[in-house]
Amino acid sequence: MSQTSDSLPPGELLTAKELEIRRLGPCSVPSPFLGLDKGFVEDADRILAYSDISTVEQLTATGSPLPSFAIAGPRTQIYFRPEETTCALVTCGGLCPGLNDVIRSIVLTLNHGYGVRRILGFRYGYAGLSPHGFSEPMLLDPASVEHIHMHGGTLLGSSRGPQDVGEMVDTLLNWRVRILFAIGGDGTLRGASALVEEITRRNLKIAVIGIPKTIDNDLAWIERSFGFSTAVGEARGAIAAAHAEARAAWNGIGLVKLMGRHSGFITAYATLASGDANFCLIPEVSFSLEGGFLDILHERLNARHHAVIVVAEGAGQELIEAETDGEQERDASGNLQLKEIGFFLRERIETYLKGRGMPMSIKYIDPSYMIRSLPANSMDSGFCLILGQHAVHAGMAGCTDMLIGYWNDRFTLVPMNLATGQRKQIDPQGEIWQRVLGTTGQPVRMRSAT
Amino acid sequence: MSQTSDSLPPGELLTAKELEIRRLGPCSVPSPFLGLDKGFVEDADRILAYSDISTVEQLTATGSPLPSFAIAGPRTQIYFRPEETTCALVTCGGLCPGLNDVIRSIVLTLNHGYGVRRILGFRYGYAGLSPHGFSEPMLLDPASVEHIHMHGGTLLGSSRGPQDVGEMVDTLLNWRVRILFAIGGDGTLRGASALVEEITRRNLKIAVIGIPKTIDNDLAWIERSFGFSTAVGEARGAIAAAHAEARAAWNGIGLVKLMGRHSGFITAYATLASGDANFCLIPEVSFSLEGGFLDILHERLNARHHAVIVVAEGAGQELIEAETDGEQERDASGNLQLKEIGFFLRERIETYLKGRGMPMSIKYIDPSYMIRSLPANSMDSGFCLILGQHAVHAGMAGCTDMLIGYWNDRFTLVPMNLATGQRKQIDPQGEIWQRVLGTTGQPVRMRSAT
Amino acid sequence: MSQTSDSLPPGELLTAKELEIRRLGPCSVPSPFLGLDKGFVEDADRILAYSDISTVEQLTATGSPLPSFAIAGPRTQIYFRPEETTCALVTCGGLCPGLNDVIRSIVLTLNHGYGVRRILGFRYGYAGLSPHGFSEPMLLDPASVEHIHMHGGTLLGSSRGPQDVGEMVDTLLNWRVRILFAIGGDGTLRGASALVEEITRRNLKIAVIGIPKTIDNDLAWIERSFGFSTAVGEARGAIAAAHAEARAAWNGIGLVKLMGRHSGFITAYATLASGDANFCLIPEVSFSLEGGFLDILHERLNARHHAVIVVAEGAGQELIEAETDGEQERDASGNLQLKEIGFFLRERIETYLKGRGMPMSIKYIDPSYMIRSLPANSMDSGFCLILGQHAVHAGMAGCTDMLIGYWNDRFTLVPMNLATGQRKQIDPQGEIWQRVLGTTGQPVRMRSAT
Amino acid sequence: MSQTSDSLPPGELLTAKELEIRRLGPCSVPSPFLGLDKGFVEDADRILAYSDISTVEQLTATGSPLPSFAIAGPRTQIYFRPEETTCALVTCGGLCPGLNDVIRSIVLTLNHGYGVRRILGFRYGYAGLSPHGFSEPMLLDPASVEHIHMHGGTLLGSSRGPQDVGEMVDTLLNWRVRILFAIGGDGTLRGASALVEEITRRNLKIAVIGIPKTIDNDLAWIERSFGFSTAVGEARGAIAAAHAEARAAWNGIGLVKLMGRHSGFITAYATLASGDANFCLIPEVSFSLEGGFLDILHERLNARHHAVIVVAEGAGQELIEAETDGEQERDASGNLQLKEIGFFLRERIETYLKGRGMPMSIKYIDPSYMIRSLPANSMDSGFCLILGQHAVHAGMAGCTDMLIGYWNDRFTLVPMNLATGQRKQIDPQGEIWQRVLGTTGQPVRMRSAT
Repeated sequence: MSQTSDSLPPGELLTAKELEIRRLGPCSVPSPFLGLDKGFVEDADRILAYSDISTVEQLTATGSPLPSFAIAGPRTQIYFRPEETTCALVTCGGLCPGLNDVIRSIVLTLNHGYGVRRILGFRYGYAGLSPHGFSEPMLLDPASVEHIHMHGGTLLGSSRGPQDVGEMVDTLLNWRVRILFAIGGDGTLRGASALVEEITRRNLKIAVIGIPKTIDNDLAWIERSFGFSTAVGEARGAIAAAHAEARAAWNGIGLVKLMGRHSGFITAYATLASGDANFCLIPEVSFSLEGGFLDILHERLNARHHAVIVVAEGAGQELIEAETDGEQERDASGNLQLKEIGFFLRERIETYLKGRGMPMSIKYIDPSYMIRSLPANSMDSGFCLILGQHAVHAGMAGCTDMLIGYWNDRFTLVPMNLATGQRKQIDPQGEIWQRVLGTTGQPVRMRSAT
Repeated sequence: MSQTSDSLPPGELLTAKELEIRRLGPCSVPSPFLGLDKGFVEDADRILAYSDISTVEQLTATGSPLPSFAIAGPRTQIYFRPEETTCALVTCGGLCPGLNDVIRSIVLTLNHGYGVRRILGFRYGYAGLSPHGFSEPMLLDPASVEHIHMHGGTLLGSSRGPQDVGEMVDTLLNWRVRILFAIGGDGTLRGASALVEEITRRNLKIAVIGIPKTIDNDLAWIERSFGFSTAVGEARGAIAAAHAEARAAWNGIGLVKLMGRHSGFITAYATLASGDANFCLIPEVSFSLEGGFLDILHERLNARHHAVIVVAEGAGQELIEAETDGEQERDASGNLQLKEIGFFLRERIETYLKGRGMPMSIKYIDPSYMIRSLPANSMDSGFCLILGQHAVHAGMAGCTDMLIGYWNDRFTLVPMNLATGQRKQIDPQGEIWQRVLGTTGQPVRMRSAT
Repeated sequence: MSQTSDSLPPGELLTAKELEIRRLGPCSVPSPFLGLDKGFVEDADRILAYSDISTVEQLTATGSPLPSFAIAGPRTQIYFRPEETTCALVTCGGLCPGLNDVIRSIVLTLNHGYGVRRILGFRYGYAGLSPHGFSEPMLLDPASVEHIHMHGGTLLGSSRGPQDVGEMVDTLLNWRVRILFAIGGDGTLRGASALVEEITRRNLKIAVIGIPKTIDNDLAWIERSFGFSTAVGEARGAIAAAHAEARAAWNGIGLVKLMGRHSGFITAYATLASGDANFCLIPEVSFSLEGGFLDILHERLNARHHAVIVVAEGAGQELIEAETDGEQERDASGNLQLKEIGFFLRERIETYLKGRGMPMSIKYIDPSYMIRSLPANSMDSGFCLILGQHAVHAGMAGCTDMLIGYWNDRFTLVPMNLATGQRKQIDPQGEIWQRVLGTTGQPVRMRSAT
Repeated sequence: MSQTSDSLPPGELLTAKELEIRRLGPCSVPSPFLGLDKGFVEDADRILAYSDISTVEQLTATGSPLPSFAIAGPRTQIYFRPEETTCALVTCGGLCPGLNDVIRSIVLTLNHGYGVRRILGFRYGYAGLSPHGFSEPMLLDPASVEHIHMHGGTLLGSSRGPQDVGEMVDTLLNWRVRILFAIGGDGTLRGASALVEEITRRNLKIAVIGIPKTIDNDLAWIERSFGFSTAVGEARGAIAAAHAEARAAWNGIGLVKLMGRHSGFITAYATLASGDANFCLIPEVSFSLEGGFLDILHERLNARHHAVIVVAEGAGQELIEAETDGEQERDASGNLQLKEIGFFLRERIETYLKGRGMPMSIKYIDPSYMIRSLPANSMDSGFCLILGQHAVHAGMAGCTDMLIGYWNDRFTLVPMNLATGQRKQIDPQGEIWQRVLGTTGQPVRMRSAT
């Protein structure tokens, strides 16, 4: 296929083996939904991992079984007895619209759906699972989560960084937790995998279910992650602001930095949604300054007298590092803002254009904190609600080391290591980037010959 | 598979044959994108129509080729010489967020991308293709569409209903139109198919490309249609209003009618997004009044003293018809509002509850016109932009009788009759409806025994 | 003055006497704010009721004292001992953005500011003060109101209509209420005045403070009422929807009904804010149909082929009554919708235009419930917060039979009967209406000669 | 009066003399509105400048005439013959919501209302009136302004700083401009006054009308300025984001910087509207760091573990200057960001808390560019529309050196020097600040003893 999908990570094809459901053991408890819900799912209900015809034909030709994901959903038989099961939740990493929706959905489904009576919320990320954590877990019930989806942030608090795995398992044991729902990104899910390993090593029957959180939408084998739609929606507003500022000045420049450490999905989709951006800079497509981007910007200003630039936070990192000889990491006073691509670009643009005698005005907008702290929009809210329900179904059915994915319009069960082992990125030859180029009118290549 | 996908229409499996691309003839004109865009697509690039493992294995077992959709995208060789080609657009049917985005994207891609110089916009739907139409087509260029995506509605105007096919083809010939982009729903696409038939009969080389518009998201083999996300987003606000009204009164009832003549997708997704609805009524799930819904509503009010009901416009039609003996259709004075489920339900609820001596207050909210006339939200805007680009790529490559679809995260080329021949509906045993039941707490069955 | 202010009711000039503060008795309790707040106010701090120079000179010439309103604010000495005082709140009438903000501000100021320990919320309006009421009052404290301002509606519930005054005073006595805060409109404040009368008759020391609620902004001597800004903000969206619908059809008509039973302030301000309306119809300016409005609409459609009409619910009532011979009031089956100006106009427009052979399409939008149930916007939120604080200051200082007003950029204490005795309306010769005429382009006169 | 109004600047009382209307000469041209508009105004229609009873009585006692502002509005006789009059607009200074609304209203009123045929828009502020300006003025007509109010920014562009007054008057003469509408803030209006002086010196008959633009709402004798309501509305969102971020971390701090160089109105009103802020820092109320604000912040974090701080850009400037010995102004490399109170506070808070061993996390949000570039909200849109109409009425009536004000609920004509001679600020003993203190719970005094 000459055009690749942006959702598929590069590399070896998956094998059917590595997509199997991981379970604590056989399920022998009848689901409380029996007789009520008709939407039960069996393990054999699966959806293809690859659906482009050439890959499927290639696999079929070799006689390999077609790799597929298990469909998420309630099982007729479950593993845990709800009324005896203590469940716990933890949210980690940066804020993302929808965190509270996921928390709320898990709590409501555990309580109303399965009749679980004891639900704990560990506070401030994995730190809350450490004996050195700031505070005890909070008890969660339907009343405590009734309205939280109307607020951004996370009821439980969050933090970054791992904790001692042994201590964390001890904490789970102390609180008699049988299912832990870990809501977080790449690092969080790696932490959850480490927990599973330690739990397995100790031969415990504790399930760990991940709910992938990445506002950047950059997890492999996850077509769509919650909060992304809300983020793109709000990002458009920041670009509109940059556009108004740019047009109001002679050679006005509006510069917007958006989220995206390694993948430019928010930046690219916001560019498509806006129609006002003239340059879209993402981590996946490198560019140079003199002899590249700055020259082209200069030309555009000469022709049109304003320009709007949207840049992902992870774009152009190699340019900053080149200039600073990697010295920055060693700066003890913590002056990290120099690695910030927004400030860096602003300064380089000013220097370059002033050096060419061009009167100009640049306005820099960084809406990141205002975006990630929003309540979820409707599409994300509904999506989070379903994610939370499926997480509970998976946990009660004794699944572990799995996360709730979304693939080909279905919710799936994905082995945790699959999503963290590789990253989803924008393919410079793929659909999205070609649409971005068509929209901004920027050249395919903004690099100097070197 | 015990749980079915809501995107798959029931009935016979598709065959590979019926999914082939339809073309006016071979492509021998080099694309103006050659050397610029690297995202070219070949006819062999296809995506499976079915991706659940059981269907795939069943087909493989019988040795049938796996049915698949062609991927949309630019071709290296095209059919029409852009500078000699007159293109035209028409929008039909009810308003939908994103219409102007699609118009804008088509015009910009034709003009900037392919260098097409003459673009016509027929006014007020197919009526604009009739010699009896209200006004001449308008000339479209980048300036005339620059800001239109910031407004709801459609720059071209719209209308409902078919026109004489022969006259419409005459009009296309008179204006020397070689590619017609028809943006509309079920009826519009059937009209476009009729045009293709007449064009073929006359042995003309005019391409007709459809861009499916259905705010209800009910077209078969189209996973997602533009405007739907915007509609769900706004519908949540109407439910919040109904909730505030319901809670403010003793036995307060908030009743919201949403769009959805035959499919309850907006109603169901808005219910999931909101979390405030206690009853969700859709066309796919029948209910009775006395001995059913009204009794359950009565119970809820006795227990909680407020209730929020969300109803799709097409729900309960058989109840209204039963009461009116089908006489209404013959009512010449046009008093169609009695078939309106909102007014009907309001009256029946009032009569029922007052008959039982229950003081109550009901507030009825119909936000339909306020929703469908909105500008597109960010996700829809980006989606429309891509739809428009693909429509142009398809048309310039001489495709005809095809529409631009979306399937398994890819944009596809779908034979027109496929999407209009059957309808996508919510499966009462499927994922979405089960989540709705879990959210509202309403019983699975609200019908009397009869 | 040839141009009158729309805020001044017509009629006799106020006298200084009738603007005096009414109090339960002298204040001898030191305010808990002493030493903290420097913003104390004295009774002598007053603001002129009239500030146009001609009225002031006329009064000065006659030697009359200039009528003025007392400034609202904390007093150094108060009447009640906070820790022994039970306070109560009640909300009455239709929903209005900001109700929850006012409730929250009163509760927080009573509790945090004055140290009042017992605060009751009567449920569902004055019905909650009746022994036949639906439920007991709820206890209010800072926790119970923490987030309520983020939701529309009213935490306490509401209802319309008066209750037996004697029974209501009995209820106040039973619950030992010393200050009642009544939040509501014209009828509510008249009810509050009746309460004051009965309290005075029984020689009780119970204070009643009104917080005027009128989304229509139609209370006399109140320059601005809470919720109005939010309402106008949202109404613009409904007009934009009507505009999109109107432009999308040949001779398309968008018809929006807005709130305003006796005064057209929302309709007029939304017309000014929108710029899309071609006709603005309000109760203060009568019009006729044939030989008036319908003829002019017909002309406009002939010339421009679309029209947007914004009508206040109270406009044109005399037209409906004329057609129905006043029979409607006697219709036992409750078919009140015929008195609804929106449906009435829609039908009359259709009949008229179809009678003249004009193809047309009319879309009717009634956003009222969606508007009045909104949470307050920022300006209204801040305004409500201050209103609530001043209501508490007034009540603790033993004021009674007073409401919190706003005049000449200051918060004031207004005798209750003043605001209910007459109504504020748009002056057809005044500022606002002239701006509306200039914006819509509609003729000054839309009446037939008769 | 113990409590002062925040709208009244301190200092000498105004005299009646200095409030007189300034005119180019007598009016002898009949208004084209004669017979149409009934809202005519005469010069004798005036509104009191002071309306608190004590000031009025004091003035009356001394026999001084009561100072009053002329009411804005159309005159029956005007000065210019519309069809022969060239008018021009210019927008200067930073962006502000509503600029395009004002431009649009002026153009529509000139064209539709008065029949003026030639309207020029000078580009990029006063620079467009300089012979060295970037581009020629653009011709404005109803079509060119039809939709501009839906976009933020300014159609005309803007710039800061004065130009040579003689050259500017030459430009007016070259283009035969008879009325110049200058939309801008303090500096712009001073520039306009200089223009008037030069025009008078040369004995020319060119009118200059100012429309005051200050998003900070800090002009004296102007109760309300356009864009302020929109700014406060959006600022609340930034505070909500800071609140979500603060609550999500252990000792989380959300820091929001808002507009307000010399006056804290936006910051104070946003604090009132939000209810989430714990500290509000404004230019009018000084504070110290150690021994003041930082100590109190530390205490709050110990007690509640999160804090939200809202700071006006002009707050605490003396602290920054003290630390930098005023050296910054001489820094040639342009490192102005150190004078930025947001970065300064963030760094000082981090240093202080880390020095006390407190784990913490601070998130800094600066929404200024996103706020000032917004389209106007409904209240501001309507307000701008009226402002523009009155500016035209004033200009056509030969008024000059006047600006359109708003006082006591009326639109007024204010001599230009009055608004620029002094600034409106928040009174630390006044209404607004007392409400802020009551809302945040911050201490009245956050200064060390020194």
